Amino acid sequence: MRILVLGGDGYLGWPTALHLSRRGHEVAVVDNFVRRQYDFEMGVDSLVPIAHLQHRVRVWEEVSGLRVEAFVGDLTDHTFVERVLDATAPEAVVHFAEQRSAPYSMIDRAHATYTQVNNVVGTLNLLYAIAERDPQIHLVKLGTMGEYGTPNIDIEEGFIEITHKGRTDVLPYPKQPGSFYHLSKVHDSHNIQFACRIWGLRATDLNQGVVYGQETDETTMHADLATRFDYDGVFGTVLNRFCVQAVVGHPLTVYGQGGQTRGMLDIRDTLACVELALLHPAAEGEFRVFNQFTESFSVAQMADMVAEAYPGEVRIEHVEDPRVEKEEHYYRAAHTKLLDLGLVPHLLEPATIKGLLDVADRHRGRVDPAAIAPTVQWRKTASRLTTAGGPGA
Amino acid sequence: MRILVLGGDGYLGWPTALHLSRRGHEVAVVDNFVRRQYDFEMGVDSLVPIAHLQHRVRVWEEVSGLRVEAFVGDLTDHTFVERVLDATAPEAVVHFAEQRSAPYSMIDRAHATYTQVNNVVGTLNLLYAIAERDPQIHLVKLGTMGEYGTPNIDIEEGFIEITHKGRTDVLPYPKQPGSFYHLSKVHDSHNIQFACRIWGLRATDLNQGVVYGQETDETTMHADLATRFDYDGVFGTVLNRFCVQAVVGHPLTVYGQGGQTRGMLDIRDTLACVELALLHPAAEGEFRVFNQFTESFSVAQMADMVAEAYPGEVRIEHVEDPRVEKEEHYYRAAHTKLLDLGLVPHLLEPATIKGLLDVADRHRGRVDPAAIAPTVQWRKTASRLTTAGGPGA
Repeated sequence: MRILVLGGDGYLGWPTALHLSRRGHEVAVVDNFVRRQYDFEMGVDSLVPIAHLQHRVRVWEEVSGLRVEAFVGDLTDHTFVERVLDATAPEAVVHFAEQRSAPYSMIDRAHATYTQVNNVVGTLNLLYAIAERDPQIHLVKLGTMGEYGTPNIDIEEGFIEITHKGRTDVLPYPKQPGSFYHLSKVHDSHNIQFACRIWGLRATDLNQGVVYGQETDETTMHADLATRFDYDGVFGTVLNRFCVQAVVGHPLTVYGQGGQTRGMLDIRDTLACVELALLHPAAEGEFRVFNQFTESFSVAQMADMVAEAYPGEVRIEHVEDPRVEKEEHYYRAAHTKLLDLGLVPHLLEPATIKGLLDVADRHRGRVDPAAIAPTVQWRKTASRLTTAGGPGA
Repeated sequence: MRILVLGGDGYLGWPTALHLSRRGHEVAVVDNFVRRQYDFEMGVDSLVPIAHLQHRVRVWEEVSGLRVEAFVGDLTDHTFVERVLDATAPEAVVHFAEQRSAPYSMIDRAHATYTQVNNVVGTLNLLYAIAERDPQIHLVKLGTMGEYGTPNIDIEEGFIEITHKGRTDVLPYPKQPGSFYHLSKVHDSHNIQFACRIWGLRATDLNQGVVYGQETDETTMHADLATRFDYDGVFGTVLNRFCVQAVVGHPLTVYGQGGQTRGMLDIRDTLACVELALLHPAAEGEFRVFNQFTESFSVAQMADMVAEAYPGEVRIEHVEDPRVEKEEHYYRAAHTKLLDLGLVPHLLEPATIKGLLDVADRHRGRVDPAAIAPTVQWRKTASRLTTAGGPGA
């Protein structure tokens, strides 16, 4: 299958591209490197050093004998989107190319509007380009479980059957997102569903949980193929951050009570889920939603698991929750559609956490402790970012 | 009350500003005249000639002795939004200032992205400016009944209680909007609800039906106070358009079967509803939704009513529906919250339609028949607009 991976230089886009390439697909990647630009803005770096995309692509060809073509450009430039589709004639597009940090979107007005315009316009340009070139192209779009928020009823996969005053309909599941970033994904979902309805496009919205892990079967084939690993207060995801904190002797910082429960998945399952979605495409005109996670844990549970897995002393510290979110809540979300397609999950076992701790330990010299604390306050309209030192500062 | 009316030069913004001014409020209006710019783009004009805003404000002062201050600028310029809030220190902001035509948003990619960016960014700038200056300011935002689409269950006012697998929650009503314009309003609603939650803002989302009528108690006080009246295929709303068609001997063009049912209201009720929302503000942190319409009619019913009210011959013509929408569907939508606050509706009676026909008849010399046919096709990604003649062409 000819597959275009948008955001192919990122944490998940890059390993997804390699995985699909190794599985025999013809893969091209697109990126504008804005994720690397955010690092300059924050004064932080990926814990694991990452090579330039052009270099990584060359190394991949040396190691695997497989070519991945790279296009550099911005999805908010519609002529670029159109040219890339013309040049690659993909059968499927995997769309990771959005600003993906909730705290980044909550820094201030400028970051909120940037996040929404960037994400919504990039996706609109893509929808138009697909509809105009080849409506058969299957769009696999990364959404987030955060679109649902934490309702007091079970979360279903995208849609819910509602019986109301004696009548019944299946309607989009109500959305209660918790940041301007999460809102941008809700906007995208509505726009994509509409495009499927009016133009007969095929789309799969992957409402993904929080991803942990850094190594995949492909990225470990050569040191220069590594993907990024973020532990900072703005882009770091919770389990990755806890492992770095454990290794450098920093208390694990649990926001608030720690009862916040989220769907989680191993980075290797992200790759598997995307491929399953691609191999079983949505029908013409179909907008479908898969909840892409494998297990749910509370933040406090994850801190305990890391503390148990780490051989040394680990302290857990509750800090004031910078977000506006329920710290204790009901959480039960369906996630059977990808299992039905054949997903065999990597569950979060002590060995997995030990693997993560090993990654953190190998690069402990690059940790900047000043970058870890949360700096973005949801209750404020503008947060001043801590100026963090550089790597090893 | 000190009230800022955004979009105060528009079809509804202008008469709302006059109404509030006459009712004793201190009113300022804001506009960037982009609505007049759309007329240049389309090559059409308001059926009823409208004076410059600056002139209308002067005439209003002469006629009523009341001052309405006018600010010229664009909500997507956040410094402008901040300066206007600083200059006026409003207790409430009524926000009409969005691109409000579904067909306009569906012309092509450029118009779709323009509509979403313009509407979403303008509202985001306003939310930040309110939160930073005075979170007590009550935001009264114009949404649309079109946010709900046409579900097969009763539509409630913004929220619905759902019992699912033995548990119950009250959640945002699922949205199935039918154009990139309607989608922009759904995006706004989600953004505003979130801002209320994190910053404690007060907001009322008025999910308005389709408005008909052109004359209000204030605009009829002087010819130069008239508000606009659109009958063209892009900005004209259905009942106004039917009246113009009847008067110029053009068949009433019903899109498709005509079973499309929508909530409707008289322009005078828009003014009353906005004032009721202002006099009974949302609580701190509350995001509330009022369904702002008084009666529901199908398109075919409206055509029949106009044909009956018109003294001459009227032909009804079914044209292919340019939109993607259900032409026959269930429709029952709650609209009790504004009635509970005291709204006494002007219902759609033959006399009302006769009044509309009179307006159309007085200005029949300005009708451009070439502007009436629908030109924007939902199923296409780009529609070529008919180049319409000027007034009286």
